[in-house]
Amino acid sequence: MTERILLTHGSGGKTAHRLIEEVFLAAFDNPMLAAMEDSATAEFSGRLAFTTDGFVVHPLFFPGGDIGKLAVCGTVNDLAMSGAVPLYLSLGLIIEEGLPVADLRRIIDSIAATAREAEVSIVTGDTKVVHRGKADGLFVTTAGVGRVRDGVSISSASAAPGDKILLNGTIGDHGVAVVSQREGLTFGGDVRTDCAPLGGLVAAMLEAAPGIRCLRDPTRGGVATTLNEIADRSAVGIRLVEDALPIRPAVAGACEMLGFDPLYVANEGKVVAVVPADRADAVLAAMRSHPYGREAAVIGEVTGDDPGRVTLRTRLGTTRIVEMLTGDLLPRIC
Amino acid sequence: MTERILLTHGSGGKTAHRLIEEVFLAAFDNPMLAAMEDSATAEFSGRLAFTTDGFVVHPLFFPGGDIGKLAVCGTVNDLAMSGAVPLYLSLGLIIEEGLPVADLRRIIDSIAATAREAEVSIVTGDTKVVHRGKADGLFVTTAGVGRVRDGVSISSASAAPGDKILLNGTIGDHGVAVVSQREGLTFGGDVRTDCAPLGGLVAAMLEAAPGIRCLRDPTRGGVATTLNEIADRSAVGIRLVEDALPIRPAVAGACEMLGFDPLYVANEGKVVAVVPADRADAVLAAMRSHPYGREAAVIGEVTGDDPGRVTLRTRLGTTRIVEMLTGDLLPRIC
Repeated sequence: MTERILLTHGSGGKTAHRLIEEVFLAAFDNPMLAAMEDSATAEFSGRLAFTTDGFVVHPLFFPGGDIGKLAVCGTVNDLAMSGAVPLYLSLGLIIEEGLPVADLRRIIDSIAATAREAEVSIVTGDTKVVHRGKADGLFVTTAGVGRVRDGVSISSASAAPGDKILLNGTIGDHGVAVVSQREGLTFGGDVRTDCAPLGGLVAAMLEAAPGIRCLRDPTRGGVATTLNEIADRSAVGIRLVEDALPIRPAVAGACEMLGFDPLYVANEGKVVAVVPADRADAVLAAMRSHPYGREAAVIGEVTGDDPGRVTLRTRLGTTRIVEMLTGDLLPRIC
Repeated sequence: MTERILLTHGSGGKTAHRLIEEVFLAAFDNPMLAAMEDSATAEFSGRLAFTTDGFVVHPLFFPGGDIGKLAVCGTVNDLAMSGAVPLYLSLGLIIEEGLPVADLRRIIDSIAATAREAEVSIVTGDTKVVHRGKADGLFVTTAGVGRVRDGVSISSASAAPGDKILLNGTIGDHGVAVVSQREGLTFGGDVRTDCAPLGGLVAAMLEAAPGIRCLRDPTRGGVATTLNEIADRSAVGIRLVEDALPIRPAVAGACEMLGFDPLYVANEGKVVAVVPADRADAVLAAMRSHPYGREAAVIGEVTGDDPGRVTLRTRLGTTRIVEMLTGDLLPRIC
């Protein structure tokens, strides 16, 4: 193997076959992929969930994660948010000529490790290489297939007045971790991405309350944008309580310095859940007993007033409107 | 809508929502996508086929097609080659800031039209935008889900001595069309891509002979590389007849000028089928009655000699070995 990726690694010929065998098949060892047919196949019965996400994060490595871990978690989490058990992932790579093969191997190993944790298999893939200067290191697009649990019906259009809004932990960690790495900033504390596969956490939550109404991962646009989408589609109001929002002091400080509102900063290991009030305690307890939910909190509630509007009760006791994100706070953080 | 794509079109916020509603939802009108949840869902029962492909073709538009048509056909064809009925596609876009919105709309319309022809739905998607100079216009990654027909068992490891090798038409058209557009060359004839969704053709072939052994689309690496893969996995020899290979005079001339062997040039609307000898005539007839198979031909046969080796009987009556592609003949033709 050469030290850097060449155009021929994307040719479909001998060099590409060697890359596939030595790097991909070795890392993602599973029979569906090893068959090396034009499609991976498996028996399936039930309600299929299908999703995709592209990843262009810069830099490729950042505190607590990398583009590979991000790509697996992003797609696994989109499946989990539909009440599905994540099963199979596809992996599409677009590589800039000259990427160090060592970097690619490190990312592929990270993908394999995250997939093992999330209990999904990488069953099909594709690699393209473009000339130097025509991409930026590596772009990753994953798609995923899962099976929706029987009896579960999750939808962003299902929130009802009286429901509680739950969140599994601190906000803004991912966006701040990436921007601090990119810009060489430190914020008086080690901020790491929260990037995590949430299939197990969501399974525990649904076991505690199969009637959970909405699940969403607040990635680009942050918690504010996600809640605006739910308020809009469910035609309800949402009232947040600022004091209840979990946030690390280092992230709060970084946001203040940079002029960001942490409610708009991307998360990659968070789930916003809308839960009937009488099941909120049970779901909260289930979240707190899971490693990815120890700092879970009830952050607000659904109301019948002001359909489509999200408001925040501030620490000063005032109320302000929380709009959907306008502009682009932090490009290329995922 | 602005005239050019901005970073905010990939932010997940208001501008991104507008792009999704005005461009994507309008073009890909279907209820699974319109639900706008984190995953698309549908009931499914049977053998699932799952595949992915990335597209980085340059230029984005070329005679007879564009990156959008290519992306739909590539994934539909990978599903069809597994004996599956293609059903659902995901669409991941990575856009360079500054791409004209008119170009994006034209490509999205082409994706929608090709999906309609192929009878698949675009059910989920994702859009990322990177800074100017960090990508090259547009990269597209599609993944696809289909249902393998009952009683069909297609595998590149199933070819057996005596089987016939069938091809649905002329070779090399796609690669030559793209390179001629890119380099501003003309070859004394209008060469257009052969890019086409082959689900319907393959359905007709399988109806004529459910026992077809292998189906492969000879894209990157061309017919030569595809046949080497089959010879290797099935541990058989393959004997081609040069005179039997359908090739347009303009493509043959272009390849001679450029020093290419058309056996290695990519196709995007071709299928190589390995068929038991007693069903070859029936499959050939089915191919020739289909619009995408009018120039179908038997191009060779499987032998028990020289397992793993592909040979060509030339017009001069000599025999030469046809290796798998080494190097990269034509970067970024898909």
